[in-house]
Amino acid sequence: MSRTLRLAVIPGDGIGQEVVAEGLKVLTAVLPADTKVETTEYDLGARRYHATGETLPDSVLEELKGADAILLGAVGDPSVPSGVLERGLLLKLRFAFDHHVNLRPGKLFPGVASPLAGSPDIDFVVVREGTEGPYVGNGGTLRTGTPQEVATEVSLNTAFGIERVVRDAFARAQARPRKKLTLVHKNNVLVHAGRLWTRIFEQVAAEYPEVSTDYLHVDAATIFFVTQPERFDVIVTDNLFGDILTDLAAAVTGGIGLAASGNINPSGEFPSMFEPVHGSAPDIAGQGKADPTATVLSVALMLQHLGLTAEAAKIESAVAADLAERVGNPARSTSEIGDALAARVAG
Amino acid sequence: MSRTLRLAVIPGDGIGQEVVAEGLKVLTAVLPADTKVETTEYDLGARRYHATGETLPDSVLEELKGADAILLGAVGDPSVPSGVLERGLLLKLRFAFDHHVNLRPGKLFPGVASPLAGSPDIDFVVVREGTEGPYVGNGGTLRTGTPQEVATEVSLNTAFGIERVVRDAFARAQARPRKKLTLVHKNNVLVHAGRLWTRIFEQVAAEYPEVSTDYLHVDAATIFFVTQPERFDVIVTDNLFGDILTDLAAAVTGGIGLAASGNINPSGEFPSMFEPVHGSAPDIAGQGKADPTATVLSVALMLQHLGLTAEAAKIESAVAADLAERVGNPARSTSEIGDALAARVAG
Ligand SMILES: CC(C)[C@H](C(=O)O)[C@@H](O)C(=O)O
Ligand SMILES: CC(C)[C@H](C(=O)O)[C@@H](O)C(=O)O
Repeated sequence: MSRTLRLAVIPGDGIGQEVVAEGLKVLTAVLPADTKVETTEYDLGARRYHATGETLPDSVLEELKGADAILLGAVGDPSVPSGVLERGLLLKLRFAFDHHVNLRPGKLFPGVASPLAGSPDIDFVVVREGTEGPYVGNGGTLRTGTPQEVATEVSLNTAFGIERVVRDAFARAQARPRKKLTLVHKNNVLVHAGRLWTRIFEQVAAEYPEVSTDYLHVDAATIFFVTQPERFDVIVTDNLFGDILTDLAAAVTGGIGLAASGNINPSGEFPSMFEPVHGSAPDIAGQGKADPTATVLSVALMLQHLGLTAEAAKIESAVAADLAERVGNPARSTSEIGDALAARVAG
Repeated sequence: MSRTLRLAVIPGDGIGQEVVAEGLKVLTAVLPADTKVETTEYDLGARRYHATGETLPDSVLEELKGADAILLGAVGDPSVPSGVLERGLLLKLRFAFDHHVNLRPGKLFPGVASPLAGSPDIDFVVVREGTEGPYVGNGGTLRTGTPQEVATEVSLNTAFGIERVVRDAFARAQARPRKKLTLVHKNNVLVHAGRLWTRIFEQVAAEYPEVSTDYLHVDAATIFFVTQPERFDVIVTDNLFGDILTDLAAAVTGGIGLAASGNINPSGEFPSMFEPVHGSAPDIAGQGKADPTATVLSVALMLQHLGLTAEAAKIESAVAADLAERVGNPARSTSEIGDALAARVAG
């Protein structure tokens, strides 16, 4: 019996193309003989937008539904007005495919230099809500372009949407050795959304007596990210706070070149999407300078999600070994790093 | 001729009382002989709330209008539901007195240990908008307390409100040696508010050709706060992003015990308010363990605002000297630190 993984690939903009190529290289190398990968590449991003005005045509969205998973490189280019590709492509995918669990591990691998003194022991995971909050795109302007302009942004939060991501986070915390879950919000200022998050968090907590819980305001959480990151195990938070905290998490764990993410639809109704946390980095695009490690680790998250846990673990070990050997050695190109990782997982 | 500074003092909750006492000690010591300070203390915070149900009575608000400035310790106590004192007292003051410039320096003083490796050269100031954005309290709930609950939070942004704080930030940047101003927002997701901030920022920039400008998304800004904080000179940002970034700024510059802030009404129509960035820290309240330095530096910001720049500079030098001597010496109590600083500014 053989299996086929139908993978939709969206390289996107800037360094997206380069890092995705390495992600696929490692994926092919790690898969067992009985598992084939069938990739379909989608030309989406700045080029397509300039050529046709499209960000994500309905027909493509329809086709993507047939994929087992999506691998995305990066989205965004200075030639396109800010927000067009982010809202029209990346966020459209997250919302259309109901990616409510945005999973972002924060792990400092041995040997990796942290900007924090003393290289603390960092190993947590952020469960960021992915389909609500300030990201819903529910805003507008009045008297646009005049000195009397007013602009609004509405954060929408539902008990339904919060409960499902909070449940996911509790289940993840329960499955980890430390069994700790921290809710991050700003419930002393955003009292309506904050109370809803807090109420649901406490309700679900009652079903998980083994999981120890605490609460931090988002501002205080950033302090602990740099002064005491080892205190965190699992964090659950809203879409915007999760966006901010996971970039900070990337920074303290060796940089955005290593930070992986999964946009997960746990029900499987729609394909989940995996992407590095970093952006398209147009300044270094096409130069073979981008670190593909974040994409490779995102491939590991994808395999985990698809139930190929041994293969996911192989990739993580390969990355750990590779990172440990980087210290003191000359910098390698994007494809050299990809080759090295592919060789390790195949070996 | 003699001057009198009418100072309203709101010690508030937790360590507020202790740190404010030291702030006043240093203030009295630094003022020239011809300047008297006349303090009126207001009993506001958790105790008052439990006793009377009041957070900020109209009569007190009216009285406070007559002050030249307000010194606030800290607000918030676990015995009061989250948000009640924050919204009913602290934010009510900021909004009622139109404190649209929330000024928060981020400076790593020589000798102070930073959690960042290599102790980078950090000296920036965050100009946080203080009267708009997600802080307006414009939200609500539907089907409250049920599994169908929906909660909203509306971020309100006006051209008027943004322009005045952006102008303030440009003027500050222009007056500093590096003349650099960074706008921080999330204009690729919060496109309505983001475009308004960006448009006004660019308009005002045209009037300040000597100020070099750039833009960062808030998530990317947190990365630079830990990897390259020396890149920042002046930052202007919205209320919520400013809240988050200034706690992070405090963390990388030696901790929340040193972070000062001013809630400024530049027109002088209402009194400005000065407060440490830290909270009420109920866990260490009443033990003489709190560091009053943030409050003392907030007093310096107050003197600066009132035009007593020589005295403000004296306090900053005293703090710098005191901090440089802390390394390797035993920890001192709240009042010992206050005494030492008072002695330095008087000497
Ligand atoms: C590009 C942008 C829309 C996106 C986000 O804000 O979610 C990115 O910052 C991320 O974290 O994946
Ligand atoms: C206490 C809270 C309302 C306040 C804020 O969010 O502004 C605090 O965090 C601050 O930064 O001054």
